[in-house]
Amino acid sequence: MGSVFGKNIKISVFGESHGPAVGVVIDGLPSGFDIDYDIISKEMGRRKPSSGVYSTSRNETDEVEILSGINNGKTTGTPIAAIIRNIDRKSSDYDELDRLLRPGHADFSGFIRYNGYNDKRGSGHFSGRLTAPLVFAGAIAAQILNVYDITIGSHIDSIYDAHDLRFDSTKITKDQLLMLRSMDIPVNDRSCRELFLQIIEEARNNSDSVGGIVETAIIGIPAGIGSPIFENVEAKISSILFSIPAVKGVEFGEGFGITRLYGSQANDSFYIEDGNIYTKTNHNGGINGGITNGMPVVFRTAVKPTSSIAKEQDTVDIKEGKNAKLMVKGRHDACIVPRAVPVIDAVAAVAVLDILMDHYGLEGFNKGRKHNGK
Amino acid sequence: MGSVFGKNIKISVFGESHGPAVGVVIDGLPSGFDIDYDIISKEMGRRKPSSGVYSTSRNETDEVEILSGINNGKTTGTPIAAIIRNIDRKSSDYDELDRLLRPGHADFSGFIRYNGYNDKRGSGHFSGRLTAPLVFAGAIAAQILNVYDITIGSHIDSIYDAHDLRFDSTKITKDQLLMLRSMDIPVNDRSCRELFLQIIEEARNNSDSVGGIVETAIIGIPAGIGSPIFENVEAKISSILFSIPAVKGVEFGEGFGITRLYGSQANDSFYIEDGNIYTKTNHNGGINGGITNGMPVVFRTAVKPTSSIAKEQDTVDIKEGKNAKLMVKGRHDACIVPRAVPVIDAVAAVAVLDILMDHYGLEGFNKGRKHNGK
Amino acid sequence: MGSVFGKNIKISVFGESHGPAVGVVIDGLPSGFDIDYDIISKEMGRRKPSSGVYSTSRNETDEVEILSGINNGKTTGTPIAAIIRNIDRKSSDYDELDRLLRPGHADFSGFIRYNGYNDKRGSGHFSGRLTAPLVFAGAIAAQILNVYDITIGSHIDSIYDAHDLRFDSTKITKDQLLMLRSMDIPVNDRSCRELFLQIIEEARNNSDSVGGIVETAIIGIPAGIGSPIFENVEAKISSILFSIPAVKGVEFGEGFGITRLYGSQANDSFYIEDGNIYTKTNHNGGINGGITNGMPVVFRTAVKPTSSIAKEQDTVDIKEGKNAKLMVKGRHDACIVPRAVPVIDAVAAVAVLDILMDHYGLEGFNKGRKHNGK
Amino acid sequence: MGSVFGKNIKISVFGESHGPAVGVVIDGLPSGFDIDYDIISKEMGRRKPSSGVYSTSRNETDEVEILSGINNGKTTGTPIAAIIRNIDRKSSDYDELDRLLRPGHADFSGFIRYNGYNDKRGSGHFSGRLTAPLVFAGAIAAQILNVYDITIGSHIDSIYDAHDLRFDSTKITKDQLLMLRSMDIPVNDRSCRELFLQIIEEARNNSDSVGGIVETAIIGIPAGIGSPIFENVEAKISSILFSIPAVKGVEFGEGFGITRLYGSQANDSFYIEDGNIYTKTNHNGGINGGITNGMPVVFRTAVKPTSSIAKEQDTVDIKEGKNAKLMVKGRHDACIVPRAVPVIDAVAAVAVLDILMDHYGLEGFNKGRKHNGK
Repeated sequence: MGSVFGKNIKISVFGESHGPAVGVVIDGLPSGFDIDYDIISKEMGRRKPSSGVYSTSRNETDEVEILSGINNGKTTGTPIAAIIRNIDRKSSDYDELDRLLRPGHADFSGFIRYNGYNDKRGSGHFSGRLTAPLVFAGAIAAQILNVYDITIGSHIDSIYDAHDLRFDSTKITKDQLLMLRSMDIPVNDRSCRELFLQIIEEARNNSDSVGGIVETAIIGIPAGIGSPIFENVEAKISSILFSIPAVKGVEFGEGFGITRLYGSQANDSFYIEDGNIYTKTNHNGGINGGITNGMPVVFRTAVKPTSSIAKEQDTVDIKEGKNAKLMVKGRHDACIVPRAVPVIDAVAAVAVLDILMDHYGLEGFNKGRKHNGK
Repeated sequence: MGSVFGKNIKISVFGESHGPAVGVVIDGLPSGFDIDYDIISKEMGRRKPSSGVYSTSRNETDEVEILSGINNGKTTGTPIAAIIRNIDRKSSDYDELDRLLRPGHADFSGFIRYNGYNDKRGSGHFSGRLTAPLVFAGAIAAQILNVYDITIGSHIDSIYDAHDLRFDSTKITKDQLLMLRSMDIPVNDRSCRELFLQIIEEARNNSDSVGGIVETAIIGIPAGIGSPIFENVEAKISSILFSIPAVKGVEFGEGFGITRLYGSQANDSFYIEDGNIYTKTNHNGGINGGITNGMPVVFRTAVKPTSSIAKEQDTVDIKEGKNAKLMVKGRHDACIVPRAVPVIDAVAAVAVLDILMDHYGLEGFNKGRKHNGK
Repeated sequence: MGSVFGKNIKISVFGESHGPAVGVVIDGLPSGFDIDYDIISKEMGRRKPSSGVYSTSRNETDEVEILSGINNGKTTGTPIAAIIRNIDRKSSDYDELDRLLRPGHADFSGFIRYNGYNDKRGSGHFSGRLTAPLVFAGAIAAQILNVYDITIGSHIDSIYDAHDLRFDSTKITKDQLLMLRSMDIPVNDRSCRELFLQIIEEARNNSDSVGGIVETAIIGIPAGIGSPIFENVEAKISSILFSIPAVKGVEFGEGFGITRLYGSQANDSFYIEDGNIYTKTNHNGGINGGITNGMPVVFRTAVKPTSSIAKEQDTVDIKEGKNAKLMVKGRHDACIVPRAVPVIDAVAAVAVLDILMDHYGLEGFNKGRKHNGK
Repeated sequence: MGSVFGKNIKISVFGESHGPAVGVVIDGLPSGFDIDYDIISKEMGRRKPSSGVYSTSRNETDEVEILSGINNGKTTGTPIAAIIRNIDRKSSDYDELDRLLRPGHADFSGFIRYNGYNDKRGSGHFSGRLTAPLVFAGAIAAQILNVYDITIGSHIDSIYDAHDLRFDSTKITKDQLLMLRSMDIPVNDRSCRELFLQIIEEARNNSDSVGGIVETAIIGIPAGIGSPIFENVEAKISSILFSIPAVKGVEFGEGFGITRLYGSQANDSFYIEDGNIYTKTNHNGGINGGITNGMPVVFRTAVKPTSSIAKEQDTVDIKEGKNAKLMVKGRHDACIVPRAVPVIDAVAAVAVLDILMDHYGLEGFNKGRKHNGK
């Protein structure tokens, strides 16, 4: 009741920040797909706290151990289980958190939800650490999608009030997305990198934090994917995006901005070229009626500023039942947006693979493989 | 694979615009709840095309026939099935649409998805008419939620570039929400009504259309509801919102705006009063870590401008495989935002009831009823 | 929570015996398949109470009205909704049943489950009448399976203590199964028909009832279908079989009888012929490890004697809270086994189609159609 | 698509016999329940190959490592993940199995299902070893059910042609079931133990194997549990039982035997005593209309003879595409029925807990705990 996602591809995520391990079981994968461990490592590396200015110096070694579902380097078609041990489990920094509710966190809502029995050390099951298994699952899904030439990539659209160039949503290339996946601060306009880092550093110096927006594109996804009414592409993708901690908004195509266009502007006109149908603009983000139309799927995700800040905040001591003050100790990211990027890429890959299975089935994936000469 | 939503409460929506009927089956309801048909009629009436300036003059009689699941005016606990006959099924206006893809609509994506076999008359299964059974389901769900003093209501936050007053998200009252549910153009600042209607009329006069944003509040929902990671409240609500045609964005609390706050501003401080814990602000929209914190749940939904416009548009003739021009005939709403409001209220009620069942179970609802003296 | 079955193909069944209608929504079907209404009528006819000796003379007109999902005689790929009006709704025969619990029926368990609010007239949602929409759904599923040359058929293996010849489980033909589908008392050994009818008539004359066993075969189903551990073929089929009222046992292949074989007898040896692999015997009913092996899938279903009997029985008056006597009035089938046969065929078809979708996907079905020259 | 079971309680099972580990994730548990590790060990011990005559001498150390979801000895309410390392991974005995299909096993059906990519060593994902995580999950579920005084236990009803005394299905006690859970060969009539062991030993001496029937009772389950049509108790329990390797039949109450009773015998008459309603007999196994009636739930499960036998069998060499002979080497249980008993108890506990959650919800379990003074 909660930690399982998907219909055809089911991922089952578990773990607490300061328990023995976090992990994931991925069920329903097609068999015989090559899995490249270097790609997994690279994706895990993108999510890991770095020594960069924007991140903390915690020592998280995201060493993945695969327990099942891969044999001779290929998916067996049975569930892949992977675990990541929690090494740095010192919890003294968190001791007073048993009493003091951290604003912006799930301390209070979680306390009520689990009757006080949830593991509160390091945010427990609510920890950002739970995104590590999501990234692992996404790295598997992305490799399967890659065989079908479906590529996902994101850039940081904004940090606080500074903005990168948006995607030109009719002309996104695979090279562009792969390039973004290789950057520590993925941006379309390279001059933004310094600006973003500067804003983050300022926030950190003020014992504060900032958030931002991530813009993501999925290219190569064929037209006709998605099942209205409820299993449409936007519902599926938004649902898993809102499962990432700190996400507070999701929009497709022009999103909220489309409300400031007239219908004659918002509609994406069709044209035909060499027998293929395209749209001239892509204000609808590659999706009409919940179904892909063959254009790039484009969406944006709002990531709130890190809740853990060193500034003093008002709160409640839940044990004594009275008002109190709190300063969250420990080292925390002044901005989690850069680390959210690979998580967003990952969950999008899982969602897309899940939807594709409706269309291709296990057989379709097998045939597809052969078509690709494998 | 598509038209069923929910885990505990399952709604199964069916129908095409020009087929015999649209309808819904609602499974999993608790038994013994009084159902007031007047409330259903009132909600259906809110969604119906009116003779107002913003809507079309099509003759849709949304007469609901209930086929099962209610006996002696009370839910039996077995599935409620309801159908709404399609009366005005003249399809001549739509004849050329078999060939010409309407921009902004699902004509192309749907054609591919269903291999050309879907019923294209009046948009078929993609028609806004499919929201009628959603409103019916919501009217049932809302009456059950009402026993628990949970109330949902929305106002039109914006039409094109004009804005209503937002909710004061810590102080929303039941009276306020009920008042909004009784207004044809629900707004917090009454002076907006005229402005909104004027913008819509202008668009219509230009053979064009406009969209807008709907802001919704859910009050009375207890703290501790929602199951991370994936069955969290934001995932569940966003998923069903994106199933409403024309929705392109969903945000909770400050949503995308939260990215322009510092962490120290975005965090909602806690305080205790008379033994109850509240937050001073509500930038997180009543949800932390995907779980309710007892404050009003507040979200906004972006509704795009009506895709059907009388202006000439570029498109493709899919039968002849060549570029073409199209003017969508017939009478269409120049703005569907007012009619989207009851649909949003409805699906939110369904989503909330589905989530609540995880917490209370069938037994809990029975006991709850007794607590309320029934 | 209860009346929806399936993962890819979802059927949503609703209705009460004495409400306005019973019906079903079938979601997730592939598009473009021809639907023959005569086949539907024929299947509905098999389930209908006949004037035969074994059945009642109630006037059930199982006229199906299709509300959506079929256009120009083909599936559209959107949900098919169908309703069957309840004509003969006289409920006087059932009046005392509000107080007296009928042994063998769900009167008591249902009363507790629904807190007394379920519609009790004519068994309400528990009525055998709810199998009519199941037969409709099965008639749709069977026509799609037929394109893939998958055929399902059953014979009555036993009535009370009299037995028909079992299937020769390695050599079942399509003709044989189609023949069984055309018989009122489907048997392999035609001499059984008279014997079965005689046993039923005897029971009726004694104001009593009898049950029996139905043996079913599915041929043409390819090897490699089914997803262990939990979505295996036996789990899926048994699950929907136990949803038919009166079913108390399900076994595959030799079933319980396999416990009286040695391993060396129970194992089905493999052999290869013209490049195809077969088993010499079929004690495992075409399923190994929950996955089809290409041999006929064979299972048996135990159907208990009709619970409604005219004999006096001991029971409880639930209103007065005291012991009482009951004679169930009205006309009831002395044996429902013949009418259970088409229901078993139907739900098996739904289950098989649901499982096949995992393998072929929507695309696979489209390609499959073309392969068959349609 | 396959290895996840349940609606409220979801178990996700993974692993291959000769991979690094097998395991399970259990999602949706209520929080705050005490977990006794000794009970887990005891249940794991019941499933483990023993040195007894009926079992093999393989060295399986079923040491469970719990990775999440339990803190301070209590359920946290977040997913419990547990893994069991595969120690004895010598696979030389299995080498020729890459070519020769073992009759009775999933070698052929699995080969087709997974396109030959499944891990075939030691039956891989089809191995009986995958029942170890099921037993773990059941041991957790049973401890929660115990708080509600729900107890599950089984005896071996038959081995080959020898029969134990059946349960007296109206008078099963908790003590009786607990006693059965403590016996290596659980039987009602103690004299059967020797007889059963003798039959098994004979089979082993003949390089052959035998199967049998397990009869299970669930007592303490309240009336009114289960949701027709499809989420009924029989469908849920049978579905998970058929997920145990080697199960070929499931029946409730009299099961197939009920077809040899008249309706007047099969119906269980009701009576009232001290305000509680009971049935005089229990031919329906505690279930009417798919819903519990408060009497013991009784079912029987047919377990086929072990497929791995040392006798020479006919088969196919799938690499060379020709007929071949096979003798399965290695040490195998001559009868797996005794080891199937704890697995059946376990999956029944998981199924019952899943169904109960519909009724009580998370809140109900919390309140229930308090009622029990915890």
